[in-house]
Amino acid sequence: MASHTVIFSPLNKAVVVPTGTSLLEAAGKADIVIGSVCAGDGICGRCKMVVKHGKVHNGASLLLTREEIQGGLVLACQTFVEGDLAVEIPEHTLAGERVVVDEDAQRFRALHPGITRKPYARSPLTQRVFLELPTPTLDSNVADAERVMEMITRRTGITTLQIGLRIVRRLPDFLRTHEFAVTATLGRRGTFTEVMDLDEGDLSARNYIAVVDVGTTTVVVHLVKVVTMATVDAQACFNSQAVYGREVTARIMASEKKGVATLQEQIIGDINRLIETLVARNNVHLKDITAVVCAGNTAMLHFLLGLPVHNIRRKPYIAASFAPLPFRAAEMGLRINPRGLLYCVPAIGSWVGADLTAGILATGLHEREDVAMLIDVGTNGEIVLGNKDWLVACSASTGPALEGGSVACGMIAEKGAIEKVGVADGRLQYKVIGDVPPKGFCGSGIIDLIAVLLDRGVIDRAGRFVEGRDPAVEFRQGRGRFVIARKAEGAVKDVFLTQDDIENVITAKAAIFAATKIMLDRLNLDFSGISELFLAGGFGSYIDRRNAIKIGLLPDLPLSRIKYVGNTSIWGAKLAALSSEAFEELHEIRKKTTYYDLLGSDDYVNQFRQAMFLPHTNIELFPSLTESQPTVE
Amino acid sequence: MASHTVIFSPLNKAVVVPTGTSLLEAAGKADIVIGSVCAGDGICGRCKMVVKHGKVHNGASLLLTREEIQGGLVLACQTFVEGDLAVEIPEHTLAGERVVVDEDAQRFRALHPGITRKPYARSPLTQRVFLELPTPTLDSNVADAERVMEMITRRTGITTLQIGLRIVRRLPDFLRTHEFAVTATLGRRGTFTEVMDLDEGDLSARNYIAVVDVGTTTVVVHLVKVVTMATVDAQACFNSQAVYGREVTARIMASEKKGVATLQEQIIGDINRLIETLVARNNVHLKDITAVVCAGNTAMLHFLLGLPVHNIRRKPYIAASFAPLPFRAAEMGLRINPRGLLYCVPAIGSWVGADLTAGILATGLHEREDVAMLIDVGTNGEIVLGNKDWLVACSASTGPALEGGSVACGMIAEKGAIEKVGVADGRLQYKVIGDVPPKGFCGSGIIDLIAVLLDRGVIDRAGRFVEGRDPAVEFRQGRGRFVIARKAEGAVKDVFLTQDDIENVITAKAAIFAATKIMLDRLNLDFSGISELFLAGGFGSYIDRRNAIKIGLLPDLPLSRIKYVGNTSIWGAKLAALSSEAFEELHEIRKKTTYYDLLGSDDYVNQFRQAMFLPHTNIELFPSLTESQPTVE
Repeated sequence: MASHTVIFSPLNKAVVVPTGTSLLEAAGKADIVIGSVCAGDGICGRCKMVVKHGKVHNGASLLLTREEIQGGLVLACQTFVEGDLAVEIPEHTLAGERVVVDEDAQRFRALHPGITRKPYARSPLTQRVFLELPTPTLDSNVADAERVMEMITRRTGITTLQIGLRIVRRLPDFLRTHEFAVTATLGRRGTFTEVMDLDEGDLSARNYIAVVDVGTTTVVVHLVKVVTMATVDAQACFNSQAVYGREVTARIMASEKKGVATLQEQIIGDINRLIETLVARNNVHLKDITAVVCAGNTAMLHFLLGLPVHNIRRKPYIAASFAPLPFRAAEMGLRINPRGLLYCVPAIGSWVGADLTAGILATGLHEREDVAMLIDVGTNGEIVLGNKDWLVACSASTGPALEGGSVACGMIAEKGAIEKVGVADGRLQYKVIGDVPPKGFCGSGIIDLIAVLLDRGVIDRAGRFVEGRDPAVEFRQGRGRFVIARKAEGAVKDVFLTQDDIENVITAKAAIFAATKIMLDRLNLDFSGISELFLAGGFGSYIDRRNAIKIGLLPDLPLSRIKYVGNTSIWGAKLAALSSEAFEELHEIRKKTTYYDLLGSDDYVNQFRQAMFLPHTNIELFPSLTESQPTVE
Repeated sequence: MASHTVIFSPLNKAVVVPTGTSLLEAAGKADIVIGSVCAGDGICGRCKMVVKHGKVHNGASLLLTREEIQGGLVLACQTFVEGDLAVEIPEHTLAGERVVVDEDAQRFRALHPGITRKPYARSPLTQRVFLELPTPTLDSNVADAERVMEMITRRTGITTLQIGLRIVRRLPDFLRTHEFAVTATLGRRGTFTEVMDLDEGDLSARNYIAVVDVGTTTVVVHLVKVVTMATVDAQACFNSQAVYGREVTARIMASEKKGVATLQEQIIGDINRLIETLVARNNVHLKDITAVVCAGNTAMLHFLLGLPVHNIRRKPYIAASFAPLPFRAAEMGLRINPRGLLYCVPAIGSWVGADLTAGILATGLHEREDVAMLIDVGTNGEIVLGNKDWLVACSASTGPALEGGSVACGMIAEKGAIEKVGVADGRLQYKVIGDVPPKGFCGSGIIDLIAVLLDRGVIDRAGRFVEGRDPAVEFRQGRGRFVIARKAEGAVKDVFLTQDDIENVITAKAAIFAATKIMLDRLNLDFSGISELFLAGGFGSYIDRRNAIKIGLLPDLPLSRIKYVGNTSIWGAKLAALSSEAFEELHEIRKKTTYYDLLGSDDYVNQFRQAMFLPHTNIELFPSLTESQPTVE
């Protein structure tokens, strides 16, 4: 195929690409960061450029105004190279060097426009740079390793480069065999950047990072393409360690009997399978995944790294390490590029993990003037309160119910999961992910259903089924269950919520509410002092905030102050993957956050017991419910 | 044995030591750097302190004045603890944080007082710190790894700490078994400091660095005690690679046939044997040697690291790496602490090695206002000329004759080597190292003998033996040799200098002189423009400068401008071992020195031929010789 030179002004960057390459791709190859957010789907209209001369093939677009078209503007993602080109990039199209573009993150930023900080600098933890080195002569006689490093510095501005002996050993022959044109894969390792590997040819566009949230109940992997900064795909599964117990403590005890390595193998296996699914579905080579960036709770990351966990469950609950160094992912058995790196987001405490550090980064809690709160609901609930001057965090043992675990028909938020439940025309309605026959509930569906059952008096404030209220309630050996869909009527199987399920959910929400309340009490604050409350977690869908208040999971704040923000653990980790500056900031957040141990608190049991009702023993804490709702008998 | 607390003011540092410890040792254990230069032998008089109260045992000293004794001053190295003490350290005794005290380096600095820069900061590449960590509680709940690093930062000020997963894995149990009192061994690795290892108890005083000069002909190891910064002992041997050739080029060719690993094993074996000798003689544990710091020419360091060398001998002579990273010494087969690090001094060019970079650092050439020259005579002669603004270096192939190699009765400068030759009462006299019967010559003895033979007309200006001049000259198959000592008269064996030996020396000195001359010519300078000429090399003894001029090894400068400075490769490496600041400066020197390739120079062969006489074809270059010397017939 013919090749063409594209010169981008005003940056004066040039790149050679084959016929048919989009201008957006060409710009990416030239290391130009465009403020595109749709990853080339032609829907965001942000990649406008002007073709000054040369031949292109143009797709139509409704996103350009008549004036723009007359001014010669095109959408770079819909414009394809057919000859040598001179292209001008308008200033507003350039994202500059300080932006992280990711579909998720972008959607998220729209949710909380209050954060005014500049976006983090684009400086991915791993990157690939194509090097065309000058051939050595008597006058250009620097050694091979220094020749490579000098060129990398010139191309990237990175001065703290290190190149290991293993690569130096094969360097002289490798450079000469490939005529001094090679791709260097670079990885940030704390204070320096490692030349991780050298490959022949130009692989600069082929670079992916797997961003992982290692939850106690679910494991989620997002595949991020580094050059475009887009999330290519995502995949989740239940954590296979569940066979050793649903709770962290049970797994620590299991590891004491069977060895940490046993639990390590389980989680490594899960991540490998998720990555394999993603690469197969997206035609990506494992060798082009150059890093894995992991968030997760402290115990899970200890299992992942094979670190001793036994002190975490014994007073005074001391972890082995909060901030492990990046190292070779292959050493842990992760199957990506053999030289690829594994990065861990740092943790705040033994029971307040990297997921919360990532969550603080993603929500920008640490940059706010006013006081905000983040509640991250996982198998452990983690709560942080504060602003730019102080941050206080604690944890509460919730169990997996709110993620669809320890619920008879619970499932991950994927095709077939009931994600919403409501009432229309007096009849109970539900929505299934993928609009297929249902096979279970994800967390958001469970919360909705309990709120609806409470509203309709099918369960009482203690969560017990009331006999004779609804024909869909069946009693077996004195314990009720509510059947929402039946196999006989087209569901994949009978889908129902049991008395045990409801009790598990109440326990979970009571733990969170009690922890929230105690933390505020200690700081002499009440709920009204919270300007914004972020709810994070793997519920599945965007949960119904009103329903979350109704069951007492969230405090009774105006809905405008409550934001469901999804999986902030993944989002924070993704920001860090694409920006070393953000990665560094995670370490600052870790150091400045104070960890309160609530388990040792005298009033915890008391507060927990009070919260074991729907929404709470003390209904005065929920004034909006008594105003607007019919009283439940 | 009883223990006593010694409190040092005004630093307010305290240390607990057993009865009989000297105050100097106690100060060392308290991390106080004293400006002592005799390493506790009681001869430098620089460790003055005042015992404010408490019981001590005092050695007498002539180094204190009556006023000082009346003022309560004692020499810390001659004063021994017998009870709890309060000791005041006068300001002039404190070396502060910016001094490198080493017997060699100190002696050397006395040789060239012209260097005015402040001494390098004391910051050894590896150090041991005894940590007494606070026991974890609910309120002090930081993880084990961060607990260790925070304490190291508090004790050393080092903030860029990294601790590897292997250590973190055993950390929780290790800390608890040893009640949170452990010694951390730290190693600088470029941009960060690694927590290399943890040991039980207080090993802070037990830390040694082996400083190595890997020469083509000789290998020298100095054992440096880090706390006192004294060179404990030194040992040298011939490089075992000599079986593959005396010259670098021959060894590169051998490595192409037999593999680099073969030559690597030889040099690693030499260094291991030298270190074993040193530790045995000084009762040091191998585990307490925490680093090896190597200088040497570029090819030798490539062999040491197993790097490909074949391009070094082929135009355009490109090395694999000039500045390899520090890494685990055990990976190369070096037997020191298994976690100990191997550091290499960076090289300037493929034929101007780390030995010269170290030499520039040691002589301070790069800091001078005026122009100076350093000639480092090894198997390759390396020459550098310049000042603080510019530095130009080149190399000349000399062969090993001047180090005692390729000389029939040549040997390393050790017991039994003739190190000086002169004439007294008309008779030839010599001095043997150790005052024992002679068994050979080291470099300085060879230079002296040739000069004496030339003076006495025993050899002519071409270096040929003149028949009938001296009965000690024997002719065998037409080739003369001068017998200086005979087995029959008490020598270990017949010790003699052959016609071949003389020719090898002439070739060596001609190569150096020619290179020196060409470099000056290219820069439009002549010898008179050199303010100071440093002669470095492993000749053995301090060589006779007049004799070096007589044979034409050195240019005819006033003796006051010529300084023999011994093994600057070792000295520079030692400065770097004890000061990370000096180690960094080596990298700056590497980058700022321009390398001239003289082998490609048209006039080299011509200049070399002219220098093949004693002292030179053009006697006008040596005016002082014709003035003061009787003309040789």
